[in-house]
Amino acid sequence: MARALELALRGQGAVEPNPLVGCAIAQGKQIVGEGWHTRFGGPHAEIEALAAAGSAATGATLFVTLEPCCHHGKTPPCSQALIRAGVRRVVVALQDPFPQVAGHGIAELRQAGIRVEVGLLEQEARQLNAPYLKLIRRGRPWILAKWAMTLDGKLATRTGSSQWISGEASRARVHQLRGRVDAILVGRRTAELDDPLLTARPPGPRVATRIVVDSQARLASHSRLVQTARDVPVLLAVGPEASAADCRRLADAGCEVWTGAARDAHERLLQLLDELGRRRMTNVLVEGGGRLLGSLFDAGQIDEVHAFIAPKLAGGQAAATAVGGQGVEQMSQARWLTTPTVERLDDDVYVCGRLRPAVQHEGSGLQNSILAEQGRSTSRDSLSAKIEFCKPDPRAQTVTSPTKQEEEG
Amino acid sequence: MARALELALRGQGAVEPNPLVGCAIAQGKQIVGEGWHTRFGGPHAEIEALAAAGSAATGATLFVTLEPCCHHGKTPPCSQALIRAGVRRVVVALQDPFPQVAGHGIAELRQAGIRVEVGLLEQEARQLNAPYLKLIRRGRPWILAKWAMTLDGKLATRTGSSQWISGEASRARVHQLRGRVDAILVGRRTAELDDPLLTARPPGPRVATRIVVDSQARLASHSRLVQTARDVPVLLAVGPEASAADCRRLADAGCEVWTGAARDAHERLLQLLDELGRRRMTNVLVEGGGRLLGSLFDAGQIDEVHAFIAPKLAGGQAAATAVGGQGVEQMSQARWLTTPTVERLDDDVYVCGRLRPAVQHEGSGLQNSILAEQGRSTSRDSLSAKIEFCKPDPRAQTVTSPTKQEEEG
Repeated sequence: MARALELALRGQGAVEPNPLVGCAIAQGKQIVGEGWHTRFGGPHAEIEALAAAGSAATGATLFVTLEPCCHHGKTPPCSQALIRAGVRRVVVALQDPFPQVAGHGIAELRQAGIRVEVGLLEQEARQLNAPYLKLIRRGRPWILAKWAMTLDGKLATRTGSSQWISGEASRARVHQLRGRVDAILVGRRTAELDDPLLTARPPGPRVATRIVVDSQARLASHSRLVQTARDVPVLLAVGPEASAADCRRLADAGCEVWTGAARDAHERLLQLLDELGRRRMTNVLVEGGGRLLGSLFDAGQIDEVHAFIAPKLAGGQAAATAVGGQGVEQMSQARWLTTPTVERLDDDVYVCGRLRPAVQHEGSGLQNSILAEQGRSTSRDSLSAKIEFCKPDPRAQTVTSPTKQEEEG
Repeated sequence: MARALELALRGQGAVEPNPLVGCAIAQGKQIVGEGWHTRFGGPHAEIEALAAAGSAATGATLFVTLEPCCHHGKTPPCSQALIRAGVRRVVVALQDPFPQVAGHGIAELRQAGIRVEVGLLEQEARQLNAPYLKLIRRGRPWILAKWAMTLDGKLATRTGSSQWISGEASRARVHQLRGRVDAILVGRRTAELDDPLLTARPPGPRVATRIVVDSQARLASHSRLVQTARDVPVLLAVGPEASAADCRRLADAGCEVWTGAARDAHERLLQLLDELGRRRMTNVLVEGGGRLLGSLFDAGQIDEVHAFIAPKLAGGQAAATAVGGQGVEQMSQARWLTTPTVERLDDDVYVCGRLRPAVQHEGSGLQNSILAEQGRSTSRDSLSAKIEFCKPDPRAQTVTSPTKQEEEG
């Protein structure tokens, strides 16, 4: 199953909004077939593994990280394929909460006389597919917060200068993240100050929609985001106060303008996440600034952190820091990362990890449901440490150095 | 010489305000004697090495990290001892700028017919004794800035809550730092909010004077610093605006009250550093808060950084960050650490290193002199990386876990 989990991760960025699934078929101690879900709309992991095993699948044990599907989606049901192949035993890490599956796949296998076991490395499988599970259960995408800061915690100087904080290796890693998410979200001030392009260079398995939270629809027509909106999607999340003229100006330039109904900006941010969930966006990378990240933090909406720390000091009481907003009141309420990964990227230190669920007295129904999704495994030596979500994408090609004209990664 | 440099570092904390010196005596490729300056007032490195070598010193080559002394200080001159021992050749890393030596030690050896070479691993020797060199040349102590912050760059929450940011392993490391410096400096707000003890537990080679920058002499009599002032020195740096009554109150409690003459608080901070230099304090650890560190940063007075980063988020636009003050204007002016060391201490990330000299357009005469002291060696594979100033003190005993009643390390 550990192998199946590793295989599953290879689909990251290509299979969403489908879940990441890996599969290994064993005869005794020998693996006779492996497979993973490689791309959205492509064959499922089980089908790939059965194809690899061929006739060796007969009487074999199949390990799969998620319950085999039993419905006709983009592909025929896997449950029937397993029955036809004559598999004797199926070990499933996690039941699929997808309404059309949700235990029916397992039931179908059992009815066909296949021995089915559920729950092997279930916590790890839950972590692997936390973004998928959040989308299914909460209807909202998984939020990855990314920032580059100085060793004294600054995102920018007091004047707003932020280029360049992190080095090339860090920026290359950010480009890899960009290449596997559904959307990249920034605040208008960040879009204005940095004038970023927010594309993945080189491109990854998917092209992210670039989203700017811009209540008043003020984003300049000459900004690089607007200028490239016809090539790579740009969505502007505006408020009811945005002028019709500005909305038209931006729409005419090729941007999609989405208006949140709520008067309150924080409320509207949650509406935006609901909207992205409706569009079946699984992973959204938030690249700042501190105000937007603060709003998301205060709302308990940050799921995963990717922080790049450059070994230099900028100073400045008035300089922006990584997460603004209200923040917690007592240090004991600070939100911990589970099993953070620390890596040296040239001069920079890269820390990433997922946020532990909020403690009880901060908790809401919403946060509790995230808790249920993430599971409580914090064991350091568990397999979860092996399945590193922060690792570079093995498919990524050598990254050419971004030129100074390009934005902070 | 590399070995001599390693040996020299063993005296850290015990020999100041004397320089750290290490010595190795070789006959051909074989080391026949080693020594280092172990404590202030004790025998110098050369004497220790000669004693270890015994008659094997005759005709040998002696490697020493700093020019041998030629004056009667706490101990008799080393130059004469080398001549008496019949050493044939002396290799010196760095000439001693101490006025009573300054080349005279080398001249004396040469006059006695000993072959003397100067400059082997000079940059490394300069780095090793950067605090000593700063004290001699600038009359001010070496400033080590220490802070513990969250992954989003906060020293405290918006309400000032800061306990606990870092974990036990980090706090143990801070206690080691405390045990080898001459003084520990904090701002009054930090002293008030955290009510720290600022002692080294377990004790290190020296007992640091605890200094509070407290312009108005408002530190509470019931604070732990004041309460323990009769056991471990407390110095209060007050301004001319402090009331005589408060100064007497604190002096009566056992604190030393030092009044800076300047009206301007920043100016007074520099006067304080000059005063500490007059007291021959070589290393001063500044433990915050952000305002004090900001003032020192703006004045170009931070020499070395010890940052402990906890993998958790506190959020809060109004929360204090590591280095306040004005800060630099452009990110390109941020001050870099040379060859930073990154270490994982349980959950925390510990980043330490010395600051690179300020770039030209920020530079002042003062900063340029720091530049001259620090040297420009930034080569990653140089020995300087081996002589790690952030490494735990090998003499330190097992540290007992600080109780929750103790302050943030």
